[in-house]
Amino acid sequence: MAISRAPQAFPRSEYMRRITAVKAEMERWGVEALVISDANNITYLSGYTALSAYVPQALLVSIREQEPTFILRQCDAPAALHETFMERDRIISYPESLIGNPEKNGYDAVIDHIQEAGYAKQSIGVELDDLPSRAPDKFKSRLPASKIVDCSKLATWIRLVKSDLEIAVMRECAAISDAAVLRAAEVIRPGVREADVIAEIVGTLVRGANGKPGTRIPPVYLCASPRTGTCHIPWADDVFRQGSQINLELGGSRHGYYAGLMRTYSIGAPSERLRRIHEIQVEGLEAALEAIRPGATCSDVANAFCRTIGKQGLKKETRCGYAHGIGWLEPTASLKDGDTTILVPNMTFHLMLGNWIDEDFGYVISETFRVSQSGVEVLTAAPRKIFEL
Amino acid sequence: MAISRAPQAFPRSEYMRRITAVKAEMERWGVEALVISDANNITYLSGYTALSAYVPQALLVSIREQEPTFILRQCDAPAALHETFMERDRIISYPESLIGNPEKNGYDAVIDHIQEAGYAKQSIGVELDDLPSRAPDKFKSRLPASKIVDCSKLATWIRLVKSDLEIAVMRECAAISDAAVLRAAEVIRPGVREADVIAEIVGTLVRGANGKPGTRIPPVYLCASPRTGTCHIPWADDVFRQGSQINLELGGSRHGYYAGLMRTYSIGAPSERLRRIHEIQVEGLEAALEAIRPGATCSDVANAFCRTIGKQGLKKETRCGYAHGIGWLEPTASLKDGDTTILVPNMTFHLMLGNWIDEDFGYVISETFRVSQSGVEVLTAAPRKIFEL
Repeated sequence: MAISRAPQAFPRSEYMRRITAVKAEMERWGVEALVISDANNITYLSGYTALSAYVPQALLVSIREQEPTFILRQCDAPAALHETFMERDRIISYPESLIGNPEKNGYDAVIDHIQEAGYAKQSIGVELDDLPSRAPDKFKSRLPASKIVDCSKLATWIRLVKSDLEIAVMRECAAISDAAVLRAAEVIRPGVREADVIAEIVGTLVRGANGKPGTRIPPVYLCASPRTGTCHIPWADDVFRQGSQINLELGGSRHGYYAGLMRTYSIGAPSERLRRIHEIQVEGLEAALEAIRPGATCSDVANAFCRTIGKQGLKKETRCGYAHGIGWLEPTASLKDGDTTILVPNMTFHLMLGNWIDEDFGYVISETFRVSQSGVEVLTAAPRKIFEL
Repeated sequence: MAISRAPQAFPRSEYMRRITAVKAEMERWGVEALVISDANNITYLSGYTALSAYVPQALLVSIREQEPTFILRQCDAPAALHETFMERDRIISYPESLIGNPEKNGYDAVIDHIQEAGYAKQSIGVELDDLPSRAPDKFKSRLPASKIVDCSKLATWIRLVKSDLEIAVMRECAAISDAAVLRAAEVIRPGVREADVIAEIVGTLVRGANGKPGTRIPPVYLCASPRTGTCHIPWADDVFRQGSQINLELGGSRHGYYAGLMRTYSIGAPSERLRRIHEIQVEGLEAALEAIRPGATCSDVANAFCRTIGKQGLKKETRCGYAHGIGWLEPTASLKDGDTTILVPNMTFHLMLGNWIDEDFGYVISETFRVSQSGVEVLTAAPRKIFEL
């Protein structure tokens, strides 16, 4: 029996818009076919969100064909038929014999398809940045008549500017993020295990907000005393104490999109040092938001933040944020000094102002925003305060 | 101020045992220094579990030095000081200017360290399989006097045979897996959203069992009707219905280790087809367990399963399991026909008998086991039944 098609997150016309934009870039780069292997770009161009990217898989976009072709592992093909907008004959599965096989793998199936589809003498784009180290040689040696062109980030840059439909999904994500930040404030208490609080936070991220569930488990980082100088520890096998500070980073997720949000909590009154850092950072955050408008650069936004906190003797080592959407971090524009990317409406970023000041002391605050016609729309809405518990 | 060291999951002697085993293999492969970039191998050899592997980082193991050196991003160094067993001077951080920089990245910092530490004219092992495609050229061009040796999976193969201390952690993981499978049976009901059940399952996986919390959010796949022919959809924006079948794959996690477990649920009486498949599969599972003993091969175990279900006209396309431990799937031995890996005590596997039979119909059952002195110890203990709800 045939598997049914799931209700789609976006209409077919939205995917065709994205694919048309990719094809226009392909023309510019001079490639006839493009092998999309980055899992987030696959989500963007097809709607596929199953977690099968630990084995090779690729979406082949051709200048000549309307829909892309998705080549993936046999057992994952039903998920592609269910989740994507594409016609049934665009899903090509490769056999299980290519799994755990040191001689041949799924990229061989992708290359077989390229040959069969008649692209073997064409110019073919690949996402070199995302391929494992041995894959490029396979493409080069098995497609000797092709010109292999590095198209890393060709599609990724297109993702940076969202459609209104994507912004609507990111608003739903942001509402979930807000709910989880507020839930954390209800459950963080002295003597409670960090794991028990994470269970409540993740529960909220999954149950969602406004009747819209989260559709994936997002990254959550909870770095509490004595770990507030760290940034990527999800949580520890530890309990909260009177006087603990808690730095939380999380993000609601729907249909592959995220909306990141960071807030700082204190059990009991925050220290004078923490309160002072918070005031400076919020002032910097407001200055950064003030700098966001079409025509400004990423660098302008970062420098507005750094100038403001610098006046009070504070600096931040890590960048002030990054392009944000499918898969959390979009590896394109960064909010940092020297990034000359020009802001245009509907670009979305995580304005990530976590500041790890000393080995044993850090503070976090962030917002997810979109560039609007006249300035900025902040999608996340949790209070910009130290949550005092 | 200096960050404190966290309570360690394993004593220093356990890490030294692992490193000694890696050094013995390095001698055999003829390398003086080994660049460990696989995040799970880093966890294995250092205790580091923070989620920072989305940027370059590496543990450098040297034949000449007792402890390895960990080179990672500056903002992640406090987590390394907190989590790992190593001395403070073994943690080397690289500056933020190497992040989001198209010219230089963290691998340049790793190479700088190799040069400074005097290995530039030595034979240096790298994990080629796990490096992104541009990194090997960086090593080759910046270390022209070195012999670069592909040591992919050198350390990964050592992980396959666990110590008793590791087995104890995997037992804790298995108890959490069992608790989550039972919790799912309590909450899956007609009309309930899949997301609400996932929230309960993940809550249990994080809260843990026997007073031991889960320490990471593990992968969870819930493929319910009409999606039981898929295997890697975490859950859908959908509700359960009377008559729904639910295929669940999950695993408790502690200190980076996992214990995978799959069970099938039915709301109302299972169909005759489902009941029949279940009986055949359980018979196959028992035959596979029977075949496990020191001296048998991975192939023997898979063939015992396939022969048994084959007698009743059933076959399974995907492999019957894989080496299992840190990071879920260890990419070494597979339980599949032709894998001649010989079983020895304390090897651990996920005996993964999910069987996706038709595009719209699959069934799942699995166990996590260790090879014992005399045969097999199954670590997971949930009832081997279709949970009828």
